Amino acid sequence: MEVTIMLYDGITALDAIGPYEVFAATQQCNVKFVAKKKGIIKLDSKMGYLHADYSFSEITSADILVVPGCSPPNYKDPMNDEGTLNWIRKMHNTSKWTTSVCNGSLILGAAGLLNDVEATSHWGSFDILQSLGAIPTEERVVRQGKIVTAAGISSGIDMALQLVAWEFGEDLSRGVQLILEYDPQPPFDTGSIKKAPAPLIENIKMLLQELSEKEPNM
Amino acid sequence: MEVTIMLYDGITALDAIGPYEVFAATQQCNVKFVAKKKGIIKLDSKMGYLHADYSFSEITSADILVVPGCSPPNYKDPMNDEGTLNWIRKMHNTSKWTTSVCNGSLILGAAGLLNDVEATSHWGSFDILQSLGAIPTEERVVRQGKIVTAAGISSGIDMALQLVAWEFGEDLSRGVQLILEYDPQPPFDTGSIKKAPAPLIENIKMLLQELSEKEPNM
Repeated sequence: MEVTIMLYDGITALDAIGPYEVFAATQQCNVKFVAKKKGIIKLDSKMGYLHADYSFSEITSADILVVPGCSPPNYKDPMNDEGTLNWIRKMHNTSKWTTSVCNGSLILGAAGLLNDVEATSHWGSFDILQSLGAIPTEERVVRQGKIVTAAGISSGIDMALQLVAWEFGEDLSRGVQLILEYDPQPPFDTGSIKKAPAPLIENIKMLLQELSEKEPNM
Repeated sequence: MEVTIMLYDGITALDAIGPYEVFAATQQCNVKFVAKKKGIIKLDSKMGYLHADYSFSEITSADILVVPGCSPPNYKDPMNDEGTLNWIRKMHNTSKWTTSVCNGSLILGAAGLLNDVEATSHWGSFDILQSLGAIPTEERVVRQGKIVTAAGISSGIDMALQLVAWEFGEDLSRGVQLILEYDPQPPFDTGSIKKAPAPLIENIKMLLQELSEKEPNM
């Protein structure tokens, strides 16, 4: 099974590496990191890099397309780049699954793939998601037809485990979970806006808002 | 706070990127990816790369050292490389925290840091961990003095959230959890050998055993 993970400057590393690790552990997926231009890709933190082994022109189809997210407002660059959006549309035409992690769904939306589609995103990006025609849905993994969107950053792991179950069966997904020793034990229980205290949510909202009002500078 | 993540060819990406993403989200950590030789670093899957921005000779101290793991038997290379082990010992001399993810603890053990120390590793590596003088301990995150070891692959996220709580306080750790939307919802509950069915554990054990008997070929 061919899995293509789209990279771009300013990306959030875990959005890409979470699903990558799940698909790699199946030993039945050929995972490719693909970007507009191959080579090293700057992370949103400006403290490291991922690496695109292929350029858009080299990869024109995949069974699974994954579009990861980024710190605001880095999604603006791919959302405003017709080359990127056209490549996504072309990949989507023949994909079995078109997926996103975090605010990667905004990029799918900009490509016109989410009109009247139930979808999720990072909890801080629901307004923009709605403005792109999607029906924002507060679930960790939202599947509608062949479009699967996941919530913020870490949720790509859960989404990929679901995709493995759907494509290869539940036994392989269970095995991958054991290989990754994915038995999460977060020290607190504040990972969603349904659980975190209101003042904490307000603080993070302000931080994300301040970030989103800046210009992308990757 | 200075965080150094050690990279080497044959590494498991999520072991490194899980903790990286947590520390990066604090906006109070300077995270550096460091390897014997800087440049691109081959992943264990042979389907991608990480990137070391610094060489060992450039980084001689950090507040937090993270040593990630790898697919068996790729740990053999760093475990048998005196340059790597000496660098780890030097970093450990002045670190506030010396940590590992997955079978990265075997590399700490090879450096002589785990004699009579309670430590964990990937569940498939407990025999080797014991042979290196450690006291294998079946917990997701094991803290003894300034040495903190985490269980397999995905556990580095939980470990880093703990470290953030210990260093910066629980509020920041809660905030990072919300930024990462780390509200795990794995589709199954087979992420530890305490929970997975016995036949599944046996299958994965055989797979890991077969891998570990090969020669590293990164």
